[in-house]
Amino acid sequence: MTSAPPTSPPPALTSRERVQRAFACEPVDRPPVWFMRQAGRYLPEYREVRAKVSFEALCRNPELACEVTLQPLRRFPLDIAIVFSDILTVPEAMGLEVVFDTGHGPELSPVVRTHDDVRRLRHPDVAETLAVVPETLRLFREARPEIPIFGFAGAPFTLFCYMVEGRGGKDWRNAKQLLWNEPALASALLDRIADTVGDYLQLQIDSGAEAVQLFDTWAGVLSIDDFRRFALPAAQRALSRVKGAPRLYFMRDASAVLHELPALGADAFALDWCVDVAHARKVLGDRPVQGNLDPLALFAPEAVIREKVRAIIDAAGPRGHIFNLGHGVVPETPIAGVEAMIDEVRRVRGGAA
Amino acid sequence: MTSAPPTSPPPALTSRERVQRAFACEPVDRPPVWFMRQAGRYLPEYREVRAKVSFEALCRNPELACEVTLQPLRRFPLDIAIVFSDILTVPEAMGLEVVFDTGHGPELSPVVRTHDDVRRLRHPDVAETLAVVPETLRLFREARPEIPIFGFAGAPFTLFCYMVEGRGGKDWRNAKQLLWNEPALASALLDRIADTVGDYLQLQIDSGAEAVQLFDTWAGVLSIDDFRRFALPAAQRALSRVKGAPRLYFMRDASAVLHELPALGADAFALDWCVDVAHARKVLGDRPVQGNLDPLALFAPEAVIREKVRAIIDAAGPRGHIFNLGHGVVPETPIAGVEAMIDEVRRVRGGAA
Repeated sequence: MTSAPPTSPPPALTSRERVQRAFACEPVDRPPVWFMRQAGRYLPEYREVRAKVSFEALCRNPELACEVTLQPLRRFPLDIAIVFSDILTVPEAMGLEVVFDTGHGPELSPVVRTHDDVRRLRHPDVAETLAVVPETLRLFREARPEIPIFGFAGAPFTLFCYMVEGRGGKDWRNAKQLLWNEPALASALLDRIADTVGDYLQLQIDSGAEAVQLFDTWAGVLSIDDFRRFALPAAQRALSRVKGAPRLYFMRDASAVLHELPALGADAFALDWCVDVAHARKVLGDRPVQGNLDPLALFAPEAVIREKVRAIIDAAGPRGHIFNLGHGVVPETPIAGVEAMIDEVRRVRGGAA
Repeated sequence: MTSAPPTSPPPALTSRERVQRAFACEPVDRPPVWFMRQAGRYLPEYREVRAKVSFEALCRNPELACEVTLQPLRRFPLDIAIVFSDILTVPEAMGLEVVFDTGHGPELSPVVRTHDDVRRLRHPDVAETLAVVPETLRLFREARPEIPIFGFAGAPFTLFCYMVEGRGGKDWRNAKQLLWNEPALASALLDRIADTVGDYLQLQIDSGAEAVQLFDTWAGVLSIDDFRRFALPAAQRALSRVKGAPRLYFMRDASAVLHELPALGADAFALDWCVDVAHARKVLGDRPVQGNLDPLALFAPEAVIREKVRAIIDAAGPRGHIFNLGHGVVPETPIAGVEAMIDEVRRVRGGAA
């Protein structure tokens, strides 16, 4: 018996090559890495900006939004930037007033619960009403052309929840009741949202986003039947309007509907931290996955963080994996935890870059 | 061709026969039905009792606890009673002070986070320190001998969360940190809790509970690795101490770990409302399941409630199914919604009783 020829490690890639190959399920030196809310409150330099301007002002100013988008890239050797914005800019563009800094979560008004409410919504020209993010993308690409940047939007059902409820809900009772009391009206509203969300994601790709992520934070509160009937077709409709770059779909508590996700038409799936990655890969076939470290694991001792990072990379396998958290980083997260996570991703399979 | 002989519907069963057959996966006329928190705040007669006595007093008085256990049985033709109590009586028996009526959820003190804290915990003689529930069970069986009554306890990981955190947690950060910072200490604490929980479930069976349910409300916040390492062996340990009646295991957000559940050694699984019941039956093999209507669906129009009840019964199949909600009924639930749910369960397959 002769031994197999030794396989040489793949050469170090640029961040852009690494991301493109991950989406194409081609070999990489190591998984690309970024994390949800990486431009955010856990960073002292972000809190410094926010001490001077409100969250609203930050979302409306491309220079400031670009500055906070750049902040995590200055500190950490990340492969991907995520444009700074908020999912509730879309309901705002559709005609709702959104107040972010209430001290107890965002407030939207008027709530949308009747046919008249839905009729009053705008189908906005997103290039005009949502011009901040495209401009932020352009500024970022001038500043850091070597780093791919992702765009994002809230998924239709998640935005529906906020628009029906008028605020963050504990159990989204009003949103669910609208689904059940007036399914045709609910579907019409979901369609309206989906069309604007789709246009907005396309605008971001046209402005230089190299992938886009749809955040379906709340679809996991639904039973499988309601997910199939409402959240899934709406997300599908939004995604079907988007071309030219990979479309990621993120959902919290996705395990219950994992086998339904391929029907969405997304190119890749961002997994919450409860999903068994090895199991998800079997269910999702050859589609790339992103994730999925428990954000609270960044509070763990360094050795535990490194062990958990390696376990996820091993479970995800060598191709088609973008490393990320399984949900947004929390504000109190120690910077050292973030550093350990990123460093460990960069060490795997002897990779360097 | 001769037509097949018409199959006559199975004869109407008593509630006890129906429950025993469901646990044995034998044919039934219709699934037995009860629902989590059926003795609770959605009932005006319960609120009347609570206007006079505190929650603590209610939990400590077998006559009053029996009275509220009986209340839903007087109103609705349910097949099963659930003994009135609270999962936090076990931490109390282990030596913690528990204050229930704080206005913002229960508070436990002192918190348990060090070796000394764990050493100070009692391994109580449950027959002595937790005598209220056995006495409540005896009183109920005198009052309604024809109705089987279930006992319950909080699962070890869920009680661990409260004992480490000292109160209800948003993300159970302190509990998770203890798992990661001091895994041996965490496991020792889980073992201590598991032993008391196991003893307590056995005591309830010995006092007439015809099944017991372990409530693992918070195990779903863990990644699959942490679930396997901490929550699962602790629940397994508790269940392994219990004999003589079926042992149900309930977990919220169980979809991510469904394939791990058979290892628990439970006799049946109570499913949260997000679980795809048809899928769960495949994964769980021939074990009976309980559930799993979205508790908020009881706010839906009657026709929608009936449709959802039928869909669950169809998905669960004709054997080994106990109908229930997928989580506790919420306090504002309309009585008419509860009535529609129960009536629809009693109509399926032409059953009557």
